[in-house]
Amino acid sequence: MDDSPSVDLLTGDLHSSLEDPTVASMNFLNEVTSRYPEALSFAPGRPVESFFDLEALHGWMRAFSRYLAEDLGYSEEEVRRTLCQYGRTKGIVHGLIARHLSRDAGIEIDPESVVVTVGCQEAMFLVLRALRADARDVLLSVSPMYVGLTGAARLVDMPVLPVATGVQGIDLDDLVAQIRAAREQGLRPRACYVMPDFANPSGRSLTASTRKALLDVAEREDILLLEDNPYGAFHGGEGTPPTLKALDTGRRVIYLGSFAKTVLPGARVGYAVADQRVRTADGRTGLFSDQLSKIKSMVTVNTSPLAQAVVGGALLEHDFSLEQANARERVIYRDNLRRLVDGLRSRLGKGSPISFNVPTGGFFVCVSVPFEADEDLLEHSARKYGVLWTPMRHFYHGTGGEHELRLSISSLTGAQMDEGLDRLAALFAEQAPVRADNPRHPMRPART
Amino acid sequence: MDDSPSVDLLTGDLHSSLEDPTVASMNFLNEVTSRYPEALSFAPGRPVESFFDLEALHGWMRAFSRYLAEDLGYSEEEVRRTLCQYGRTKGIVHGLIARHLSRDAGIEIDPESVVVTVGCQEAMFLVLRALRADARDVLLSVSPMYVGLTGAARLVDMPVLPVATGVQGIDLDDLVAQIRAAREQGLRPRACYVMPDFANPSGRSLTASTRKALLDVAEREDILLLEDNPYGAFHGGEGTPPTLKALDTGRRVIYLGSFAKTVLPGARVGYAVADQRVRTADGRTGLFSDQLSKIKSMVTVNTSPLAQAVVGGALLEHDFSLEQANARERVIYRDNLRRLVDGLRSRLGKGSPISFNVPTGGFFVCVSVPFEADEDLLEHSARKYGVLWTPMRHFYHGTGGEHELRLSISSLTGAQMDEGLDRLAALFAEQAPVRADNPRHPMRPART
Repeated sequence: MDDSPSVDLLTGDLHSSLEDPTVASMNFLNEVTSRYPEALSFAPGRPVESFFDLEALHGWMRAFSRYLAEDLGYSEEEVRRTLCQYGRTKGIVHGLIARHLSRDAGIEIDPESVVVTVGCQEAMFLVLRALRADARDVLLSVSPMYVGLTGAARLVDMPVLPVATGVQGIDLDDLVAQIRAAREQGLRPRACYVMPDFANPSGRSLTASTRKALLDVAEREDILLLEDNPYGAFHGGEGTPPTLKALDTGRRVIYLGSFAKTVLPGARVGYAVADQRVRTADGRTGLFSDQLSKIKSMVTVNTSPLAQAVVGGALLEHDFSLEQANARERVIYRDNLRRLVDGLRSRLGKGSPISFNVPTGGFFVCVSVPFEADEDLLEHSARKYGVLWTPMRHFYHGTGGEHELRLSISSLTGAQMDEGLDRLAALFAEQAPVRADNPRHPMRPART
Repeated sequence: MDDSPSVDLLTGDLHSSLEDPTVASMNFLNEVTSRYPEALSFAPGRPVESFFDLEALHGWMRAFSRYLAEDLGYSEEEVRRTLCQYGRTKGIVHGLIARHLSRDAGIEIDPESVVVTVGCQEAMFLVLRALRADARDVLLSVSPMYVGLTGAARLVDMPVLPVATGVQGIDLDDLVAQIRAAREQGLRPRACYVMPDFANPSGRSLTASTRKALLDVAEREDILLLEDNPYGAFHGGEGTPPTLKALDTGRRVIYLGSFAKTVLPGARVGYAVADQRVRTADGRTGLFSDQLSKIKSMVTVNTSPLAQAVVGGALLEHDFSLEQANARERVIYRDNLRRLVDGLRSRLGKGSPISFNVPTGGFFVCVSVPFEADEDLLEHSARKYGVLWTPMRHFYHGTGGEHELRLSISSLTGAQMDEGLDRLAALFAEQAPVRADNPRHPMRPART
């Protein structure tokens, strides 16, 4: 290798996503995390690790092989070929996913409408790549936005128009206004992305009536809805309203599914349900899933059948209910969420200028603070207090979130959370000390 | 679900790749294959299946876990986390891949320059997405071209300019001419894609001196080379010249690696080696692999660590030499290639208007015929003769390949090949019967 220090490429000559502020922010977060490995982190939305079990993975793979042999009648050779060889682009666990959706989410679908993907991220990418035909095509999303969506949209040069959260989790008047304003500018709003249950990052959920109203708007305004549902199984115990897809009578909803939180992230298996009817130039009609499959063949060819076998085996072993399979995890997340909320309340005290929302499930709580919660403060928080969190600024398009931070409840133990909350409280006290005479106007100390 | 037959989307309103002729052709091929499941197929470039062994996969996963614990000193908890949790975007087997490249390919690299991908297809996609900044950016490729490359380029709207094969496997004069003509049109040729060993679909290889000359051209003309090497291990026994990356002293080569043929397709693990130095807008310098990693985080987040563990374990068990691990497979492919070539020779006879090339390794032989080898003929071949092959037309940009077909030697047994060759010979005899008086001008019967 040549060791000359010359530069071969400039990012200015590479795709613009590489200089995107959101991407840069996420990289900064990863960098801070790696520089302060001992810090307690409320940043990552990773699932709890205490139930990870390597032997269970081997068992799930074997269970899937048995299913192929015993239920589908495959020969030994066919089982080996299914797991080891190139295979069906749309995947091999589509039938099992359809049974899971029927059992857990009240969604009844033709398995042919499923595309199994490399995590939900690839599902988002495939859908956006298909929908972005030219520079007129735009996407809508409730803001603050999931960064995975922002990233996928950047990769296909598709602008994302922010829709206000409002009091319902999505401001439908603003949605309609954004759609119409975009059309007046000659743009084509194709779809609106939404996480109806315990959204990342806001923690907000939509009521049943808001869901129905959103479907009505989609129908009236002729847009698709991209429903992403990674946290629905982690309600506090009360369940959740029906998914948009379960209520969808007009094929308006593309359902994006993930097994990262309900089975394990390491499988990297997700899926899209895309039952829309598509007519091709030669006049043939087929499923949108088959168009996504064509794109998938150019991105990853197919999803590892070994990884699919792990997820398929888990579905079989749990009789298709991941809601049931995650009973232990749900209790942990519920207890952690309560601990975080109670811990914040008791540490902040009455009259604190700091406030936060109280979701009934999911992984995330948003905290509003009277100082800038930016990357400098995160660095300071890591160095001086040994505690990490996510600046909400990352999740806004344009401006917003400067005074908000996101706390995740999923990856710390109870004891770690208590210690982490003590550290956070010290940071908050430093940044916004409450003056007895005027608790609403805290002094803002200089950054150290 | 609503059962109305109305159409929700038109492909004309979706991304143009969905109406791309190459993609449509590959779909047609899959469709014919599924309609004639009993046909003997010379079409797929799939590896031989006889050594697939599910228990070996479990063993490889365990071997990788042992390596993490014993060689890297991971705790049990860290091993579980590494395999089950979200992880490093660039992958977890980069160090093992570096050792493999050193052992098998004479390539010495910093493991940090490796990005582990979901098959080689994702590696191609990441590189092209990074290099295609705007409509001026174009790619070059030896023509006939690998369809996976064409597909990835279509997804990022990057034109691929064909470079003639010539007598050396790549016509370097044509390469220079294409680069300069493109620049005169205001275009930016970024890279040239090439498979130096037993190319798909042509079967052609580059000599050592052509490789050096190609690197000189890349340096002089300031373009990158994308070296794809899925078949290098399957030489006839004589070895291959050094890879371009092994000869690369100027960081001109991005090496694209695949384990689909050397370990198993079902892992869907490939990689890119991208050691180019990149300067970002904020003046920092880093590796191109880190830029590809950012894009990967928006496409698939990371490659399944379970799948990586399977490949990593195989590398460990085989002491990093997949060339050695594939000794049995190499013999099968060598024997099959000889059987195909001898079988074609003996069946065609002297004076046949049908000719073919004779590669010394790899999976593919190209046959030139005096009739159109198109989709209609493929359908006819499947229906009447029960034999499948790939029209070379798929692999040409614009025109070319109308009278060529590709035969793969990798997935039929010897006995199946003999039978398949009999069927092919019958098709050829029907389409180009040799007239005793003028063997060079066969009659062309009407299609039935």
